[in-house]
Amino acid sequence: MIEPTVRADFVAAPIEFSTAKKMTKSPTRRTDKALRVRRVAIDTYRENVAYLHRDCLVYRTEGFQALSKIEIAAGKRHILAVLNVVDDSAIVAPDELGLSEQAFAHLGVDEKTQVRVDHPERPKSLDAVRRKIAGQQLDQADFGAIIGDITRNHYSKPEIAAFIVAASQNELGRDEILYLTRAMVDSGERLDWQEPIVADKHCIGGIPGNRTSMLVVPIVAAHGMLIPKTSSRAITSPAGTADTMEVLATVELPIDKLRRIVRKQRGCLAWGGTARLSPADDILIAVERPLGIDSKGQLIASILSKKVAAGSTHLLIDIPVGPSAKVRHMREAQQLRKLFEYVGDQLGLHLEVVITDGRQPVGKGIGPVLEARDVMRVLQNDPEAPDDLRQKALRLAGRVLEFDPDVRGGRGFAIARDILDSGRALEKMHAIIAAQGKQGTESKPGRLVLEVASPVAGVVTGIDNLQMARIARYAGAPAAKGAGVDLFKKLGDGVKKGEPLYRIHAEFAADFRFAESLCKQDNGYQIGRMADIPPVFVQF
Amino acid sequence: MIEPTVRADFVAAPIEFSTAKKMTKSPTRRTDKALRVRRVAIDTYRENVAYLHRDCLVYRTEGFQALSKIEIAAGKRHILAVLNVVDDSAIVAPDELGLSEQAFAHLGVDEKTQVRVDHPERPKSLDAVRRKIAGQQLDQADFGAIIGDITRNHYSKPEIAAFIVAASQNELGRDEILYLTRAMVDSGERLDWQEPIVADKHCIGGIPGNRTSMLVVPIVAAHGMLIPKTSSRAITSPAGTADTMEVLATVELPIDKLRRIVRKQRGCLAWGGTARLSPADDILIAVERPLGIDSKGQLIASILSKKVAAGSTHLLIDIPVGPSAKVRHMREAQQLRKLFEYVGDQLGLHLEVVITDGRQPVGKGIGPVLEARDVMRVLQNDPEAPDDLRQKALRLAGRVLEFDPDVRGGRGFAIARDILDSGRALEKMHAIIAAQGKQGTESKPGRLVLEVASPVAGVVTGIDNLQMARIARYAGAPAAKGAGVDLFKKLGDGVKKGEPLYRIHAEFAADFRFAESLCKQDNGYQIGRMADIPPVFVQF
Repeated sequence: MIEPTVRADFVAAPIEFSTAKKMTKSPTRRTDKALRVRRVAIDTYRENVAYLHRDCLVYRTEGFQALSKIEIAAGKRHILAVLNVVDDSAIVAPDELGLSEQAFAHLGVDEKTQVRVDHPERPKSLDAVRRKIAGQQLDQADFGAIIGDITRNHYSKPEIAAFIVAASQNELGRDEILYLTRAMVDSGERLDWQEPIVADKHCIGGIPGNRTSMLVVPIVAAHGMLIPKTSSRAITSPAGTADTMEVLATVELPIDKLRRIVRKQRGCLAWGGTARLSPADDILIAVERPLGIDSKGQLIASILSKKVAAGSTHLLIDIPVGPSAKVRHMREAQQLRKLFEYVGDQLGLHLEVVITDGRQPVGKGIGPVLEARDVMRVLQNDPEAPDDLRQKALRLAGRVLEFDPDVRGGRGFAIARDILDSGRALEKMHAIIAAQGKQGTESKPGRLVLEVASPVAGVVTGIDNLQMARIARYAGAPAAKGAGVDLFKKLGDGVKKGEPLYRIHAEFAADFRFAESLCKQDNGYQIGRMADIPPVFVQF
Repeated sequence: MIEPTVRADFVAAPIEFSTAKKMTKSPTRRTDKALRVRRVAIDTYRENVAYLHRDCLVYRTEGFQALSKIEIAAGKRHILAVLNVVDDSAIVAPDELGLSEQAFAHLGVDEKTQVRVDHPERPKSLDAVRRKIAGQQLDQADFGAIIGDITRNHYSKPEIAAFIVAASQNELGRDEILYLTRAMVDSGERLDWQEPIVADKHCIGGIPGNRTSMLVVPIVAAHGMLIPKTSSRAITSPAGTADTMEVLATVELPIDKLRRIVRKQRGCLAWGGTARLSPADDILIAVERPLGIDSKGQLIASILSKKVAAGSTHLLIDIPVGPSAKVRHMREAQQLRKLFEYVGDQLGLHLEVVITDGRQPVGKGIGPVLEARDVMRVLQNDPEAPDDLRQKALRLAGRVLEFDPDVRGGRGFAIARDILDSGRALEKMHAIIAAQGKQGTESKPGRLVLEVASPVAGVVTGIDNLQMARIARYAGAPAAKGAGVDLFKKLGDGVKKGEPLYRIHAEFAADFRFAESLCKQDNGYQIGRMADIPPVFVQF
């Protein structure tokens, strides 16, 4: 019925290939049709999106599917993008290739440039991801290839998610964490401060109000040790150090200006997004956070890759432990500490870990303006200053100061206290603020307020870090700088029935109602007897 | 420096909440501003995409991020969509909400309808996914919740990928596979043929040219047993049964017409995408295939959920084993068989598994037209018909016929052979083709051909299924129906040096060059001595 029709003029001569020769690289499928680039004013965040008209010849002949990845080449420049198919010539015409803002910037050619569109090669490093899913150990070359492909945007988001889950389900071994960290450092730029000691401190997070960096930096810099602190903005918390510092000073600084400030002031408190430090980390986090997956390996690689790339030589890591902290048990904290130490040592970092009390928020304020207020009160030696924030900052600063070979072991705390009590830390903070650029307008706590009272008399036996952070976020923090929560009572404090536990601040009515309704479900506090307070055994 | 400014008129009365009351449901954040729906002619395949102008008030005040998920509500209808931010009012104006074609259809309201946009609640079933990542067993309720959320499009693609990887890394237990299968059946419609025996057969895939269904269906239907076969199109292979049948007849049939055909002819060979059978499977596959992740649990759930939803009562599963098949070792095939049997029994299916020879492609042709040719030659009892395809189809058909209580065990093969040899199977095939709608134009093998010759003399000791499939795909199959590979030599055949092993057919010059270049790297054949042929121990 159906027989092959062979026309003599199309039969090529038989060819002979060695059967031993194995495939090394798939040939790339090239189409002969070129398309003109058009910029489509759609912001697709970190994902490259390309738009082809349904009547586009290339779309019809190449067998592309909507949402499949395509490779776009203009001369030697090429990117991968996710394909959306368009039925409206006003967005993209049949002979055009539309590019979202990100894809347009990423390809880096002018509009109307002729480009070719192809089936992309599947990133080879996906084989390593599949081996990880199958339970195998990966080596340095595997992690280098995976992180390299992720940095070059060769992975789709589901592929990134597959890597994240694969690397968290069967926890990475300590050498795998090292390989991942190294690969992430190599994915971007690396600062070199050309000093023997470049100090930094970092908390693994999860404790609201824990703004010790804004105290440690002025203390350590006032001592003369270099501490060029770059921080992130909040992603899932009600305030990051960058958000809080921004209440007082400009934090988005060009890298050259940052270098001049650090050279002169010995420290800074800036946003870390200006330099391209461990860019793979940003890409991984953008997929990881919405998935709500936390793994030790990725936590360590994320923190250490950023620090090594930022040029740190000496690093203090703060691991808070508590029933609603990221780390809930001392055993877990010790495991994490050993992993940090192992990877830090292999990377040539001088790294120390302190395990701290993470049973409740630190200080009184939660949210950028309220936290900045607490920090300034400590620096001003104000009697209203929260003592737990002051004590924690002094201990951390003391440990950082002991990185200085001239500081005798055990003397750091006293030196830090002298610097704070004498007003030299406040003076240094003012100098750093002035150098970075003082904020013109003074921010105030949100004017919509709600005081939350205790339903019973007793002693505060628990404050849920997660719930307090959530209430502050619902109230508008960190986007609304004045939004957040101001705590009146901390663990062990006695309360009368009806006495306020904390005050919620919001700037907008919708946020206010939103926080109020969350608070009605769970106000985050536990009231009981003194004996009910969970004990904490920290080494600090 | 910064003090809270509290205006008395905004201070709400202190409220008292029970601390015992725990949060059960996050309040949904409602914005007061409504937006008008606009249909944006962009095809985003299975993903809902929404477009907001950067100057849109809702976008500015709600703190949405590009690529984050938003919830869109119109009265009681609501969908989740991925947000893209637009800077061009021609695409979407600041007071409009743009919806991609999928999202527009999915929301199901008219243009200009007023809608509200909110932060979505995080699907609760993600907690179960996280428990799976942590290594826990999930129960029926967990799988029901996960598959329900996936079917309602409440998962982003990275979230789906997280579930797929989590469920494949620590293999699902057999009860988990059962729960997953049940949840997938429940995600869609279910056909009921109202007959005691509704037979089907299914191969787990991976063997090019394995078109036995197109022989089993006419043989079994000619016997009078009901076999309403619905098949998929090729996703990663050079031809699916639907693609091959489409060379001969219409395969996309409305469900009512399909029912009439099956009632009259006792069988059909149609595309399975018309009814909404196990829609969760389609969503999972769309994410799973590009990731290249294969897990036993998902394979079984995917196949059995489709079959149960399609109303099958009796099912024959074909597991080919061979060095380049999906299943490479007999031990693995036996494990898979036990899992199929366990889940099938629990679902009330009469299920049998056969393990077959998967060392090489079945038949001669690979690609829709060439495979259809082989099938028709077998039906026509043509001396040119590939005997391996004939034998395999007769054995499978024989086993299916033995589902009939009136057929004595062991007699099925002889009955099948009688039906084939007598021409009754061909007659039934013509009747099915006529009922579904005969294709008007006869397709021919692609006219661009290349014969690939053996570089040495010897015996064919290996044919790589994966490489032959790849060459056929590069040549244009299945989109170009006439494209593919026609095999002249099979395992054990002697070849002279320079003698052709197979012929590549292409329809387009670009495909032709593409296949040629792949073939130059690895022609897929191994030539050696008779003793080098890998043995096979199959139970069939």
